[in-house]
Amino acid sequence: MGGSSFGTVFKVTTWGESHGRAVGAVIDGCPAGLFLDMDFIRDYMERRAPGGGKYATPRKERDIVEIYSGIFDGMTTGCSIQMVVANNNQDSGAYSEIRDKFRPGHADYGYFKKYGIRDYRGGGRSSGRETAARVAAGAVAALILKELGVELVSYVRSIGGIEIPPPNYGVISNADARLNELNMPDDVAYRAASAYLSGLMEKKDSAGGVVECVARGLKAGLGDPVFDKLDAALARAVFSIGAVKAVEIGAGTAAAKTTGSKNNDQFFARDAGGAGKRSNHAGGITGGISDGAPIIVRASFKPTPSIARPQETVNTSFNNVTIAVEGRHDTVIAPRAVVVVEAMVAIVLLDAVLKGVTSKMDNLRKAYANL
Amino acid sequence: MGGSSFGTVFKVTTWGESHGRAVGAVIDGCPAGLFLDMDFIRDYMERRAPGGGKYATPRKERDIVEIYSGIFDGMTTGCSIQMVVANNNQDSGAYSEIRDKFRPGHADYGYFKKYGIRDYRGGGRSSGRETAARVAAGAVAALILKELGVELVSYVRSIGGIEIPPPNYGVISNADARLNELNMPDDVAYRAASAYLSGLMEKKDSAGGVVECVARGLKAGLGDPVFDKLDAALARAVFSIGAVKAVEIGAGTAAAKTTGSKNNDQFFARDAGGAGKRSNHAGGITGGISDGAPIIVRASFKPTPSIARPQETVNTSFNNVTIAVEGRHDTVIAPRAVVVVEAMVAIVLLDAVLKGVTSKMDNLRKAYANL
Amino acid sequence: MGGSSFGTVFKVTTWGESHGRAVGAVIDGCPAGLFLDMDFIRDYMERRAPGGGKYATPRKERDIVEIYSGIFDGMTTGCSIQMVVANNNQDSGAYSEIRDKFRPGHADYGYFKKYGIRDYRGGGRSSGRETAARVAAGAVAALILKELGVELVSYVRSIGGIEIPPPNYGVISNADARLNELNMPDDVAYRAASAYLSGLMEKKDSAGGVVECVARGLKAGLGDPVFDKLDAALARAVFSIGAVKAVEIGAGTAAAKTTGSKNNDQFFARDAGGAGKRSNHAGGITGGISDGAPIIVRASFKPTPSIARPQETVNTSFNNVTIAVEGRHDTVIAPRAVVVVEAMVAIVLLDAVLKGVTSKMDNLRKAYANL
Amino acid sequence: MGGSSFGTVFKVTTWGESHGRAVGAVIDGCPAGLFLDMDFIRDYMERRAPGGGKYATPRKERDIVEIYSGIFDGMTTGCSIQMVVANNNQDSGAYSEIRDKFRPGHADYGYFKKYGIRDYRGGGRSSGRETAARVAAGAVAALILKELGVELVSYVRSIGGIEIPPPNYGVISNADARLNELNMPDDVAYRAASAYLSGLMEKKDSAGGVVECVARGLKAGLGDPVFDKLDAALARAVFSIGAVKAVEIGAGTAAAKTTGSKNNDQFFARDAGGAGKRSNHAGGITGGISDGAPIIVRASFKPTPSIARPQETVNTSFNNVTIAVEGRHDTVIAPRAVVVVEAMVAIVLLDAVLKGVTSKMDNLRKAYANL
Repeated sequence: MGGSSFGTVFKVTTWGESHGRAVGAVIDGCPAGLFLDMDFIRDYMERRAPGGGKYATPRKERDIVEIYSGIFDGMTTGCSIQMVVANNNQDSGAYSEIRDKFRPGHADYGYFKKYGIRDYRGGGRSSGRETAARVAAGAVAALILKELGVELVSYVRSIGGIEIPPPNYGVISNADARLNELNMPDDVAYRAASAYLSGLMEKKDSAGGVVECVARGLKAGLGDPVFDKLDAALARAVFSIGAVKAVEIGAGTAAAKTTGSKNNDQFFARDAGGAGKRSNHAGGITGGISDGAPIIVRASFKPTPSIARPQETVNTSFNNVTIAVEGRHDTVIAPRAVVVVEAMVAIVLLDAVLKGVTSKMDNLRKAYANL
Repeated sequence: MGGSSFGTVFKVTTWGESHGRAVGAVIDGCPAGLFLDMDFIRDYMERRAPGGGKYATPRKERDIVEIYSGIFDGMTTGCSIQMVVANNNQDSGAYSEIRDKFRPGHADYGYFKKYGIRDYRGGGRSSGRETAARVAAGAVAALILKELGVELVSYVRSIGGIEIPPPNYGVISNADARLNELNMPDDVAYRAASAYLSGLMEKKDSAGGVVECVARGLKAGLGDPVFDKLDAALARAVFSIGAVKAVEIGAGTAAAKTTGSKNNDQFFARDAGGAGKRSNHAGGITGGISDGAPIIVRASFKPTPSIARPQETVNTSFNNVTIAVEGRHDTVIAPRAVVVVEAMVAIVLLDAVLKGVTSKMDNLRKAYANL
Repeated sequence: MGGSSFGTVFKVTTWGESHGRAVGAVIDGCPAGLFLDMDFIRDYMERRAPGGGKYATPRKERDIVEIYSGIFDGMTTGCSIQMVVANNNQDSGAYSEIRDKFRPGHADYGYFKKYGIRDYRGGGRSSGRETAARVAAGAVAALILKELGVELVSYVRSIGGIEIPPPNYGVISNADARLNELNMPDDVAYRAASAYLSGLMEKKDSAGGVVECVARGLKAGLGDPVFDKLDAALARAVFSIGAVKAVEIGAGTAAAKTTGSKNNDQFFARDAGGAGKRSNHAGGITGGISDGAPIIVRASFKPTPSIARPQETVNTSFNNVTIAVEGRHDTVIAPRAVVVVEAMVAIVLLDAVLKGVTSKMDNLRKAYANL
Repeated sequence: MGGSSFGTVFKVTTWGESHGRAVGAVIDGCPAGLFLDMDFIRDYMERRAPGGGKYATPRKERDIVEIYSGIFDGMTTGCSIQMVVANNNQDSGAYSEIRDKFRPGHADYGYFKKYGIRDYRGGGRSSGRETAARVAAGAVAALILKELGVELVSYVRSIGGIEIPPPNYGVISNADARLNELNMPDDVAYRAASAYLSGLMEKKDSAGGVVECVARGLKAGLGDPVFDKLDAALARAVFSIGAVKAVEIGAGTAAAKTTGSKNNDQFFARDAGGAGKRSNHAGGITGGISDGAPIIVRASFKPTPSIARPQETVNTSFNNVTIAVEGRHDTVIAPRAVVVVEAMVAIVLLDAVLKGVTSKMDNLRKAYANL
């Protein structure tokens, strides 16, 4: 029940703490015969890496993924893949202040109540460092999706209240997002957000933001009914990233304010086997099943809880104390979380594909004949 | 992979279609020795029942839950509990129009692409009728939570743009919500929403809305790290209800617009073993673990997709056609979904409790000694 | 954790007690578009039905399977299938003696210690009656396997020490087994076993027996490494049938007494893509993966624990008492268990097929293209 | 679906190949606050280590377990524990002969059919080397069981046809087993088995054997009904060890040859809350639930398939060829498998304990109150 496993066919189990020896992921259920393109994985890891700009933690870690098992001659063997990312740059000393105090907005208090013991160094298991393992595993999922023609794009939609113009979901690319270190694919918004963050840094404060991920090219008919709806799986996956406080699909919260006649996506005939839609308020998922339109997922991240301002809290003896969380912290989480959201979306979509190929007897017959 | 199972210790599997013989749920993993209070379950079912007002479908079904297994002398035996809710009032004739056409905003097209075949009568498995099974199972979870001192409250927070004033999460009750058929615990908002819905009905249109659920009295330290965070589990559970397009915990999307100094919930010492919080922007969950404050979950429901206005769509031969979805439909889904959200929250929280009792060796030793 | 679910893709959840209203199974994950041949299912149920001979319980129940959900126009829809088998012939009165006493060899004591409460009528959930649900679900699995070219054959290999001659696994059929009510496909053994059972009946005693199941035509390369080996899955499945005390694959216990040079199955080239084996001591599974030879599973059933002789036991107040288990009981379990073993084998093999179709990237690409 | 995960609450995921960098296990769901006694783990690893005698592979590897995550100050934190065992002594060169040939009795052919690609060096993932990870994880489970008063004992019951006298299950100890390198707790049998193995070594042949594991002190009432019976879980776990061809509980196959009056274990009153049994043919499990008597599990291992004699086989081009499997191989697997069986039994029993503590409402109430 540890909570560190995810997925049903493509199953990911992560491990590791912020200041332990390493973090990593075991992938079980990866199809055999995939050339494991380490450049592709490296690129994913670099999108998550800190140090990209002045609003991110200066902790400099080149996150090298080492593969301990599951590949042979550069190809996946179908057996469990162990991916290890060493922790090279941790600085335990800086965390001594928080040893006995619960940081507001952090998991400290909950972990203490749950486990009685906690690795207080940098948040231990609850640290954002844990997401390096997700990104490594998600890169493998994304690599397979790419081979199947599914493209993933992710970026910062807003920081504080500063939002980019509504993107064109059909053409926006990761290259657009990577033009600046905030991963905001709009220069005006980027400049405004930069100024906003500079002001907050001076005030030892932090900002929240919204990350959006688009998946293009996924076939219609994926996802399972009832409890394993594709949107439900995506919501769980993205909400499992620390600091997420809301997940929206397509129109999201705005859907609650509009009317059926405006919100329904009307169909038109595209070809003999498929329908197009005149709009995509559904974000590519209706009734929990993909409809062939781009999948649109949006996650609201709360402001970085680690701030250097004094805050009230209690210590492990349950006395009132004051805390100022010094150290290396991102002023805003969203830009570095972009690729984490994408990684989780990749894992969910690949799992839906792997689960979906036998939903019809006809497909099962053909697939079995191919064995 | 059918998607019809949910939960790990308290496991619920549902079955049934809108116009089949019945819908139902099997609960596996319910502790033995629970007096299965059928009045409590009946009350849950009645909160979901249609016919409560002029904005709900006139389909009149008294949803009687029959228990086929798993109880003996009124007590749970620990074995799987089969709960059956007959479909008494279905009217297949009214659905003949949609046999060959995909209704916009519905699961029809996705199911067709996924399965090649679909029970078109009333949406079949994708019908809101399926939620009767969830409510039956959720009532059992809620009954156990009640015995443990956890109280669940749910209501409509808004319809269209019309919102109730921010509720006092410490005192709001289900009785407040049930004062009117829209389950809006505020008379002014209720009247405005009624007028809004009446206008939409005339225009053969429909409205969206937001449901909020509060859980009070849950201990701190529940939920699992990483992928099984309590908020991730809640998000999946609530997103698995048809028509949900966003799930928020606590401050939700607003968290992305504020700053760390405002958003962090500061702690104060309450007693020798616990901390209180000066605010609850986290909605009772930090780092995926409960912190002892009320759990606050919010779900945005899109407008009812079934509207009697003509809409463009395609048929199963992939020709362009027009459709007007006549029949008995709720003008707004949210009021009847209130108890569905509550049921799903109950299942998630109970599961977290059942998983949480052995998170510490000390607790395991005591629990084993008690066997 | 109720234990009533089985399978990962083709998932079966059973419910029901011996003397409740019904027993049944929910299948989740059945591919859509299967014509659900009710004659095929009926035939399976009849193979399990009591009353076939003088050594079986006279409890006469025609086990009619009713489908409550998951089919439409006779075809599976891909949604959860609820199968209900009513309990028509239970006789609660006959069980009053065992209300407060633990029957030796039965689950009574364990259930009492585990749950504190138990449905003592006929063993409740631990009754062999529960297997009716397995057979119903297993029939569906067997139906799909049949479409894929996999044939299942099952029979009684021995009763007491009386064994049939080693069968020819390539040709033995269910018709051979059904020639007599003991399901022993050998007339000499059948007569000897009949005489043996008659003697035991007079002495109010019971016999054990061995059931063997053969699966022919399964492709090589199915089953998963390490913990989900095909033999491990079969062992769990068959051991989950009450009264089983041993499961063997291929040579089974005899393998421990021989040498490598005798036990190894040597290969020969059969065609461009496959190897044949000169022997099949492995029972069709090597390293947990199918090798294309017939799968051979053997289960040892203990003697029926219900015997009318007086036995020592304790009651629920933990006093020493004597018990004589009167009532309608099979003198030997194995003949009626034949189809139960087959049902469990069918579920396991189908699950392995469904899991196996995406083990290679090549297969995944083709399967996805087919969607 | 990779098959490398096991357990529901105490969940173990293994990874690694014979000739890769390392093998290892991730434990998820281990209670927090356990002092992780590395001496205890080291002792487990040494019981599996090769080189203990002349019948074992001379591959000398000191299997040092390194903990990468999940402990802090020597205590478990409740988070996922990564255990790594480096492969220091692999010798890839010796395996070049088997690169293109399928070894009879090995997983080679099945893996080739399943995955299209295989790590042929030493069997890769299907190698017995993989069990080092199981033993590391099982040692943690055994450590917790020890704290709860459950004692595990394992030994070789027979080699070839040479069997030790029936052990006294109440007193036999691991010290008895470790008196000789065959782990046979009887000197006469040990000498006979030694002579038998010496003869086989000369003939370049190998032997099978039987391992028995006894668990004493487990409370009654553990295990789940129907599919998750304790014996079913044990059977799967033990059958998942390579080379196992049969699993028996208690009387095992002998139960099928006896009568109910002899096989039933009669009860007697022991104290106010528990019953004793006059015999233990059930091996401590009735109806899938523990009854408080020692759990007895027996596994039949086939002879080591790697033999240096020439055998017929085919190569990856599906031509007939001859193979002689040279290299470092155990003449008999059973002695080194003793601790692997024990490790798997430990994991299953601990999982049953963790799942069992909330089977009654009374226990749930107390356990929740303790949080």
